[in-house]
Amino acid sequence: MSIPNQAFNKILLKVSSPQNLKELSLEQLETLSSELREAIILNLSKTGGHLASNLGMIETTIALHYVFNSPTDKLIFDVGHQCYAHKLLTGRQNSFNTLRQYKGLSGFINPNESVHDAFLAGHSSTSISLGLGMSIARDILNEDHNIVIIIGDGGLTGGMALEALNHLGHIQKNVLIILNDNEMSISNNIGGIYHYMKRLKETFFYKDIKDKINLIETNLSVNHLNPNVLNLIHNVKEQASQRFETPGIVFEKLGINYYGPTDGHNLQAIIRELENIKDIKKPKLLHLITQKGKGFAPAEADAIKYHGVSSSFLNNLDSSKTDKIEPDYKPKTSTYSDIFAQTLIELAQIEPNMVALTPATAEGSGLVKFGNLYPKRFFDVAICEQHAVTCAAGMAKAGLKPIVSIYSTFLQRAIDQIIHDVAILNLNVLFCIDRAGLVEDGETHQGAFDISLLRTIPNLKILAPKDANELKDMIYTALASKQINGPIAIRYPRDKAYNFTTNSNNHEFKLIDFTKWEYLHKAKNHKVVVLATGSMIEQLEPGFKTNSHLTNYASLVNARCLKPLDHNLLKLLLNDHNIQTIVTVEEGALSGGFGSSVLEWYHNQENEIETYTANLPVKTRINFPRIVNIGLKDTFIEHGQRSILLDQNGLNSHKLIKRIEQLILSSFTKTPNSVEFLSQV
Amino acid sequence: MSIPNQAFNKILLKVSSPQNLKELSLEQLETLSSELREAIILNLSKTGGHLASNLGMIETTIALHYVFNSPTDKLIFDVGHQCYAHKLLTGRQNSFNTLRQYKGLSGFINPNESVHDAFLAGHSSTSISLGLGMSIARDILNEDHNIVIIIGDGGLTGGMALEALNHLGHIQKNVLIILNDNEMSISNNIGGIYHYMKRLKETFFYKDIKDKINLIETNLSVNHLNPNVLNLIHNVKEQASQRFETPGIVFEKLGINYYGPTDGHNLQAIIRELENIKDIKKPKLLHLITQKGKGFAPAEADAIKYHGVSSSFLNNLDSSKTDKIEPDYKPKTSTYSDIFAQTLIELAQIEPNMVALTPATAEGSGLVKFGNLYPKRFFDVAICEQHAVTCAAGMAKAGLKPIVSIYSTFLQRAIDQIIHDVAILNLNVLFCIDRAGLVEDGETHQGAFDISLLRTIPNLKILAPKDANELKDMIYTALASKQINGPIAIRYPRDKAYNFTTNSNNHEFKLIDFTKWEYLHKAKNHKVVVLATGSMIEQLEPGFKTNSHLTNYASLVNARCLKPLDHNLLKLLLNDHNIQTIVTVEEGALSGGFGSSVLEWYHNQENEIETYTANLPVKTRINFPRIVNIGLKDTFIEHGQRSILLDQNGLNSHKLIKRIEQLILSSFTKTPNSVEFLSQV
Repeated sequence: MSIPNQAFNKILLKVSSPQNLKELSLEQLETLSSELREAIILNLSKTGGHLASNLGMIETTIALHYVFNSPTDKLIFDVGHQCYAHKLLTGRQNSFNTLRQYKGLSGFINPNESVHDAFLAGHSSTSISLGLGMSIARDILNEDHNIVIIIGDGGLTGGMALEALNHLGHIQKNVLIILNDNEMSISNNIGGIYHYMKRLKETFFYKDIKDKINLIETNLSVNHLNPNVLNLIHNVKEQASQRFETPGIVFEKLGINYYGPTDGHNLQAIIRELENIKDIKKPKLLHLITQKGKGFAPAEADAIKYHGVSSSFLNNLDSSKTDKIEPDYKPKTSTYSDIFAQTLIELAQIEPNMVALTPATAEGSGLVKFGNLYPKRFFDVAICEQHAVTCAAGMAKAGLKPIVSIYSTFLQRAIDQIIHDVAILNLNVLFCIDRAGLVEDGETHQGAFDISLLRTIPNLKILAPKDANELKDMIYTALASKQINGPIAIRYPRDKAYNFTTNSNNHEFKLIDFTKWEYLHKAKNHKVVVLATGSMIEQLEPGFKTNSHLTNYASLVNARCLKPLDHNLLKLLLNDHNIQTIVTVEEGALSGGFGSSVLEWYHNQENEIETYTANLPVKTRINFPRIVNIGLKDTFIEHGQRSILLDQNGLNSHKLIKRIEQLILSSFTKTPNSVEFLSQV
Repeated sequence: MSIPNQAFNKILLKVSSPQNLKELSLEQLETLSSELREAIILNLSKTGGHLASNLGMIETTIALHYVFNSPTDKLIFDVGHQCYAHKLLTGRQNSFNTLRQYKGLSGFINPNESVHDAFLAGHSSTSISLGLGMSIARDILNEDHNIVIIIGDGGLTGGMALEALNHLGHIQKNVLIILNDNEMSISNNIGGIYHYMKRLKETFFYKDIKDKINLIETNLSVNHLNPNVLNLIHNVKEQASQRFETPGIVFEKLGINYYGPTDGHNLQAIIRELENIKDIKKPKLLHLITQKGKGFAPAEADAIKYHGVSSSFLNNLDSSKTDKIEPDYKPKTSTYSDIFAQTLIELAQIEPNMVALTPATAEGSGLVKFGNLYPKRFFDVAICEQHAVTCAAGMAKAGLKPIVSIYSTFLQRAIDQIIHDVAILNLNVLFCIDRAGLVEDGETHQGAFDISLLRTIPNLKILAPKDANELKDMIYTALASKQINGPIAIRYPRDKAYNFTTNSNNHEFKLIDFTKWEYLHKAKNHKVVVLATGSMIEQLEPGFKTNSHLTNYASLVNARCLKPLDHNLLKLLLNDHNIQTIVTVEEGALSGGFGSSVLEWYHNQENEIETYTANLPVKTRINFPRIVNIGLKDTFIEHGQRSILLDQNGLNSHKLIKRIEQLILSSFTKTPNSVEFLSQV
């Protein structure tokens, strides 16, 4: 497949490597920027992807590749979702139409894809640490090249970016930071730094004061002043020019040389600035003001709406403004995120002390509407997962009922805070973990590890709802029940909610007993019992109705609470000598996951030890069940549609049911009545 | 037990609650500060603890309790190790001599210990998030009290503190931050912020420029200037006074009102400042300059040396200056930390590309000497675990061999960085995890979770050395072997190294095959096989020589690689029908730990599945071994001496050997030849 001609006309087609840019005139580079803009818009109308941020980065990317020499010079894109122009200029034009598709180009940067991708990214705020590390390596290895970090104003709110900036100011390595300032991370940007930079741009007052001092001097010189006064004026001017000349005083104070602000869509200006500063062997920051969605009117007007687009966005330009255009392949009104957000709105009246926090994922987690309705009870804390969790701990200690809405992959940033600030004091913080399980964004974003990471933390309960209503009831119970103490995490995938009907909106909340699992199907003559969690029930339950082997010989349990386990039910299974195999199913890493906790329980429960020391007959031993864990293997999982990934990892309905059929078969081979089953297969 | 009289004379003895301070005169408060100083020094000479930082905080603590009303007003101490004066002023005088002892007072703050401890801490940089969360709660709940955060300049380098500062500047809550600036965190402080604050104190130039502008104006007014010029001067002055009046411009720019700097040992000045600003309902920061070790000459002279002291420090005042006085109950030359640091020095010549990073734990991890010898290859990045790991990832990608030296408990801060920046690209970063296992500092510091947290991460190898030489060889192999790719973590406890002799210093490095475990004892007729990891081998090995039951019926394996497992050895055990029980032993959480990985392997290996589908006889099933996991239960573990904690958690030699004896016994009850064993018991 090739890209349509209208997208790639003459100049872009000639650019097979960044070196080709060097031969182009400024006018040709300007034309190239239009061509890139067109190519990105047209391609994203087929693949979906990050639109607005990429349109804002086109001139910057051209200028960087014009002035620097990738891959000798290293370009490190923070997050990496603004790298489309970079991909098109670095030999990936022909595969650009596979962007974000299974086995196609990644939506982020990845050195396994191109030597021009200096590192891998996906999460925010890592680039300054990476660039600093690479600059130390360069200097120790006596190499000579430039290291350029491209980070947005949103990325700069992340604590680790600030840690790295601080270290860079101290260690004074030759690194260039391009601050791509579009006044907006995924949601509207938050925080003092943002306001600071906004004031910067509004006033430019430092330049102003210097000009005025010059003017005073000029005017005064005609008067005959005494030397002391002249001297004073001179001193003030000198101090002012030393200290106040730069608008980036915060960066300067931290030891980073500040340049700009510069119009990030003025190619000539960017190139001139880069040429001027590239040989200064110090930490330096060039502040570029860009506009998200630049060159595409609808995206300029509503950058949040066009942050990520689905493949059909060009067709929907005329649709109502209230319809969000997002890469959501499911109807917007029935995802787990929607159910979560709707539930919070419904519970807000019942629970006046409930508040919600999110680290810059208000849009994706569905919380925008809640925030609009309850602005004083909603806190988007920017890309600050650590702060979000510990702030919630403070709230809980002081009497609120905070809910932290966070993606599984970003929760990884706050493990210590969950342990140290929430769990030790057993505080009532509710974590609603969205995108838990497989997502289309690839290795960096898979929600694979949350169960394993959380389950080792004492005091924390982990829940996974089987469907829309159970999610509602879990949130309700966690907030409403006086019996429940301590932190609770509820995980759910980025998918439409199972069993959602329009009636779900009229669902009456009910309390759930977290300590109890429930049978969804119980076979009289079960050989296999399936303990399924959360999203996996949607994949399994229909098969128990349609597949006669499963119907007859397997039972299905909704293991809604992944921690603690339902010990009573597990004991019953142990004593049911008919059961040959227990199967656990989870959409998460097998290493240390839910399945392994079931194994731990069976091998280590105190009663079992008593059984052994009481010298029971060998028979007990024979019936020790085999336990099979189904989940994600110990590897990183690539990008692609969720349905493809579920299939590839053996977690869709078809593969799961086939696997359970096999396990039923092998269970029968162990018992005298194998024939009974085999004859039916 | 009561405190010696000389420590608690009249005034302190009268203070049973902070309310008592209100009745004292300034002179009496000054006397009280001397009494507190004396009490802390004398008590620490019995209990050990953090000396220098606490001596630096005495006047501040008195002033805070004098001006504010704890527990109505909330005092939140960052880290909490500088809270001794606070403890003595809040009703804990009589138990102060139990500081840091098992079942005694915690060395940190903990609301379970006193209502005056507004939160729990132990890790750095959490207090601003906590205070911000509590201020939001206060305002929503319509309460009326002050929230005071006490944070050091070291704590301010942590990313999450900066995230919180940024959010606070945005949200403008009424919170007071006391910046306790002693120019030093645990090691010497690092980073741009430190240099910034240092310059602040040196120059005070903002005040200077304002004075000069006033002087110009005064001088000029005698001349007859045209109105435009006068207007200009007025403008400049106004802008200057608005913008430059404060030395804390970085804080001001972030939206935090800055006050100070003030002498943190001038009680009157601190009280005056606090009285002035306490009713300003905005985010505000009071910058106090303090001196670590204040009032105790040896600690003033060398605050790093007296950061933490052992109980005998008063007796050692005359000892050589080169002897560090630390709370180390073991000879300094033989801890695992020492072995680690010594090994790095030995390997530095062989591996010129090796570099070492540490997040502010240079002293504790033993790296100071390495840093002195190789200053260009050593990076103390301040309290920035996230940045340390991702910086190392950048270094590794660019060709260095970085070693991240980090405590187990602080590694929790960098889980996402290990996943996202190190493991996905399978980079050669070596993590040397100190304090892995039980430590005396309590809940917040236990190295309990690293195995579980790390084992779910693909590509990462996890090792634990059995003794001094194996640690050396592991580091050597990780760095030297060309065959080994990807990240490696080596965990070891805070303890003296097993099998250390002076000969260890002449140890010749050898390559270790990480894929192979080794038998340390093999019983011909083994019923039980013990798979022991790292520190647990020291507790177990002697028992296999002295206890005849173990000698005859149990084998001991050094499971040196916790991930991946030695599959070949595990298969041999599975096929050895003599074995009734496999025991795993680890100094770490059982939930998701090493033991559970052994369970996963036995239940889920592919060969086993083939076995089942191939319809093998039931006999195979009978011999499916029971697996018992020994490790830390699913609870937070209190403070106390390591030896006490090992005993309480069943992980010392005595308890482990007793447990294994029981398991041998129960194994025999399963087999026809039970009598053979029982007759010997």
